[in-house]
Amino acid sequence: MTQPNRLIRVDVYTGKIYQQALKEDYTHLGGRGLTAKLVAEEVPSRADPLGRENKLVIAPGLFAGTPAPSSGRLSFGAKSPLTGGIKESNAGGTAARALAGLGIKALVFEGKPAKENQWQILRLKEETAELLPAQELAGLGNYATVAKLKQTYGPRAAVISIGPAGEKGLPSASIAVTDTEGRPCRHAGRGGLGAVLASKGIKAIVLEPGTSRNLPADPKRFRALAGEFSQNLARTKTALTQQGTAMLVEIINHVGGFPTHNFREGKSPYAKELSGEKLVALCQARGGKNGHHCSPGCPIRCSNVYYGPDGQYLTAGLEYETIGLLGSNCGIGDLDAVAALDYLCDDLGLDTMEMGAALGVAMEAGLVAFGDVAGVKNLLEKIARGDPLGRLLGHGAALTGKILGAKRIPAVKGQGISAYDPRALKGTGVTYATSPMGADHTAGNCLPGRGNVDIHRPEGQVALSLTLQIISAFCDLAGLCIFVGPVPENLQTFDALLAAYLGGQVAAEDLGRMVLRTELAFNQGAGLGPETNDLPAFFREEPLGEKGLVFDVPREDLATIFGGI
Amino acid sequence: MTQPNRLIRVDVYTGKIYQQALKEDYTHLGGRGLTAKLVAEEVPSRADPLGRENKLVIAPGLFAGTPAPSSGRLSFGAKSPLTGGIKESNAGGTAARALAGLGIKALVFEGKPAKENQWQILRLKEETAELLPAQELAGLGNYATVAKLKQTYGPRAAVISIGPAGEKGLPSASIAVTDTEGRPCRHAGRGGLGAVLASKGIKAIVLEPGTSRNLPADPKRFRALAGEFSQNLARTKTALTQQGTAMLVEIINHVGGFPTHNFREGKSPYAKELSGEKLVALCQARGGKNGHHCSPGCPIRCSNVYYGPDGQYLTAGLEYETIGLLGSNCGIGDLDAVAALDYLCDDLGLDTMEMGAALGVAMEAGLVAFGDVAGVKNLLEKIARGDPLGRLLGHGAALTGKILGAKRIPAVKGQGISAYDPRALKGTGVTYATSPMGADHTAGNCLPGRGNVDIHRPEGQVALSLTLQIISAFCDLAGLCIFVGPVPENLQTFDALLAAYLGGQVAAEDLGRMVLRTELAFNQGAGLGPETNDLPAFFREEPLGEKGLVFDVPREDLATIFGGI
Repeated sequence: MTQPNRLIRVDVYTGKIYQQALKEDYTHLGGRGLTAKLVAEEVPSRADPLGRENKLVIAPGLFAGTPAPSSGRLSFGAKSPLTGGIKESNAGGTAARALAGLGIKALVFEGKPAKENQWQILRLKEETAELLPAQELAGLGNYATVAKLKQTYGPRAAVISIGPAGEKGLPSASIAVTDTEGRPCRHAGRGGLGAVLASKGIKAIVLEPGTSRNLPADPKRFRALAGEFSQNLARTKTALTQQGTAMLVEIINHVGGFPTHNFREGKSPYAKELSGEKLVALCQARGGKNGHHCSPGCPIRCSNVYYGPDGQYLTAGLEYETIGLLGSNCGIGDLDAVAALDYLCDDLGLDTMEMGAALGVAMEAGLVAFGDVAGVKNLLEKIARGDPLGRLLGHGAALTGKILGAKRIPAVKGQGISAYDPRALKGTGVTYATSPMGADHTAGNCLPGRGNVDIHRPEGQVALSLTLQIISAFCDLAGLCIFVGPVPENLQTFDALLAAYLGGQVAAEDLGRMVLRTELAFNQGAGLGPETNDLPAFFREEPLGEKGLVFDVPREDLATIFGGI
Repeated sequence: MTQPNRLIRVDVYTGKIYQQALKEDYTHLGGRGLTAKLVAEEVPSRADPLGRENKLVIAPGLFAGTPAPSSGRLSFGAKSPLTGGIKESNAGGTAARALAGLGIKALVFEGKPAKENQWQILRLKEETAELLPAQELAGLGNYATVAKLKQTYGPRAAVISIGPAGEKGLPSASIAVTDTEGRPCRHAGRGGLGAVLASKGIKAIVLEPGTSRNLPADPKRFRALAGEFSQNLARTKTALTQQGTAMLVEIINHVGGFPTHNFREGKSPYAKELSGEKLVALCQARGGKNGHHCSPGCPIRCSNVYYGPDGQYLTAGLEYETIGLLGSNCGIGDLDAVAALDYLCDDLGLDTMEMGAALGVAMEAGLVAFGDVAGVKNLLEKIARGDPLGRLLGHGAALTGKILGAKRIPAVKGQGISAYDPRALKGTGVTYATSPMGADHTAGNCLPGRGNVDIHRPEGQVALSLTLQIISAFCDLAGLCIFVGPVPENLQTFDALLAAYLGGQVAAEDLGRMVLRTELAFNQGAGLGPETNDLPAFFREEPLGEKGLVFDVPREDLATIFGGI
């Protein structure tokens, strides 16, 4: 076999590891396509997300390890402890390619450990898979965890791990994946999947290099298409290469959608200090790096390595959404402070977006002042210690706001929204309200310039969001980073790549639709039907900025968006 | 008109008060029957429970002010901030009769005040209704609130009020009703309706005596039936008259269902010290009182007035459920301590059951030790102050347990269960799991001796629970206290009373079924369909006591219990 086809099941109750050949009709699936299918088929929709019946599925994208550009996304899927619905969250880094190199199509963790707080690692290498006791890693942050594992298993091992937030079962817990320099700074952040992996008693997964290949049916044709696509990306994504996603700070601030002070404002007094330009200047002055690739062979290279004022490493992969939510939304206008908080979240294994949104509501409720960096660090340390207040914040923006009595809680289906105010980016607002994922921007981000719509007007947003949700679902299935562009203009390329890979015609859009249908059916059973498709009332009621923007896409349209899917 | 027929609507946004004549087809309704109908018809099922669209409905039972025995229950209804479903919670005291005396069939509070934290009272007297500013009452406990209002409006006024917990919007907030001595010690505790009244900016309702009458269609026949029923109750309910509901401590402990240490045990080491016998002895020794009637003319007189060791008033209406949950379940085996906590909850306006369940999980999670009375008082004071931890507890057992990471959370549909372990009282367990109210014992309490079933076995429990749920719903509609007995043996009496009151044949069971159908339809729309009918897994998995009892009524039976209703 020249394409990955091993499905590895780990029963954490018995400790047994099974290998299965892949079902025939799953060969065209990968990433979110495979996590969605397996979770929907095998997890009861009413299962306790941290209980015996839930499963955590890890699947590299269909194109992992091929020459397809930016195809190194790794999907994690389960029923989410944050949203109560089905969830896929993906991360860059080196693990997707490593799994493909081991011929693995998916890893499935099942059951519940017989004992609590007993930690294990899963070690995978050519032809073997074993669970090993790892109690010495208990309570360690992701950085120390990875450092210890690399000592034992060598610098070439890719590591997937959780931090203390995951160990404590917090629904904001992320799963970390090592980047090309072996740092645990790429995170599958959303939906608390770190807590699900923890509920299986797994602290980390070590992937030693394998020799399997992911060979397209028509390798020559595939390579030619991939090469052309790659060159095209390298040529057109120069702003991302130069500034990384921080380039969005000034763009989104310009259109009035940069979250500030718990989404009170969309034009931020901190935008200049938090901008991509500023980030690049600091990196250049201190020996940091822009144009860094998080996964091997990525032509876009939007990541960065951020050094502090002392010229020492501070964090890596400092992204727009972190800057928007942990920075401006919390009244923090200092990139060094945001970078330090990003490191702390990465180390604790916390979603920076959920934390930024949760801290924003906590600030509005008066728990800590806007802009109080020391206060925020103190709260994050409470999370590490498992203090009640820390546990509260670790449950995310929706519950933090509810318990503290905040009036404005920017969350959908229990999950904090990302760093794009839906009053200013109405298509992204539609995605937040309707995506089976909850308020993920990655599920269909209607950025300025996408589609033939005015981002500030309601017209056409539902259709645009639906199109981008379908194509984004395909990209997540293929393991393609959303920065390749989940837009109709790329469908021809996606279809051509699929045909060359599978040796038969399958439309990318059809795969995307299938993913969404699968997820929507699961959510319906879990009590998250179309009637839950809406944004918090304050986005409809409180005008934003000079234009007085409110979110005014009709509720009926949100409830019926997937009618024809 | 010789029966109450005024429907008074208070629009708290405009401050306008409207009077409507009652719809013709509502004449046979009252209490829970009327709150269910009005909430289901007028509140969108997806409404924010503390928002503009929710309404708070107050309705005396159909028989309020008639000679029907124990007919003084007052129903409060709304969409619950605790369960997210429709809710009715009722209380004894003097207000139901006072409302009937004013010819009022229901009070409906609608809208949202233009300003937050501006408190008003509603003053009702013969022919007039007015909203009056009451900022001087802000932050006061129920006792001080009532004392102030009685100074102004005289000792004969009945008062409905909320405490600081309600003002803070906490989903464990109760609504207090004054008893026959004018103490705010009768509470509509369940479901957080105090927070809903607070969301309307209403601190209290003052009812001055009126002269309207509630005259049955056939007064003579009704009086004869009522007299006979009353004598029968006085003759058969002597244990309740002597010891009050505390008589249940030893009974429920004997059958192994008295909650202890967060439902770990069902036979309590504290039972003797918390028993009805002990309570009576203390009352007798100190000048307290048993055989006290909470509402005028009640022949059962199950209430009490509890004096402390210093011979001073400590609390009144100390009930079995409070003793079970704030006492034994929290490892507190001292009646004086429980009485002091009962007073504190009554004064703050907190449901003692929800607090007992929430403190139990907090104790399990290590926030405070089992039996630590000072620690519990400290936490209740945090609720009064609005501290984050206090706010957490004030959100009830389900959220407290979730946030603190407790493994055993005794709650259904977001509401803490009452003081009957469902493994030992399986019919009551069915009621917890299936009632549209969430885990209310009053919705259909399958006490030992009710129905032809073995309380410890699963057989027959679904049928028994359904029967008692139907008859209990009728009693709540009629304003009859559940201690008259919501059992088939009383249906003939209920039907006869209905016929004499209405002047036509209506079956009590049909009314009860109608109430349940109305509530179930609302809950379906609110996302609380039959798939949510279950108990927490630990009741099915953790054996209780020597007999190793688990809750083993099949899930399918819980989901289909209302099939034929």
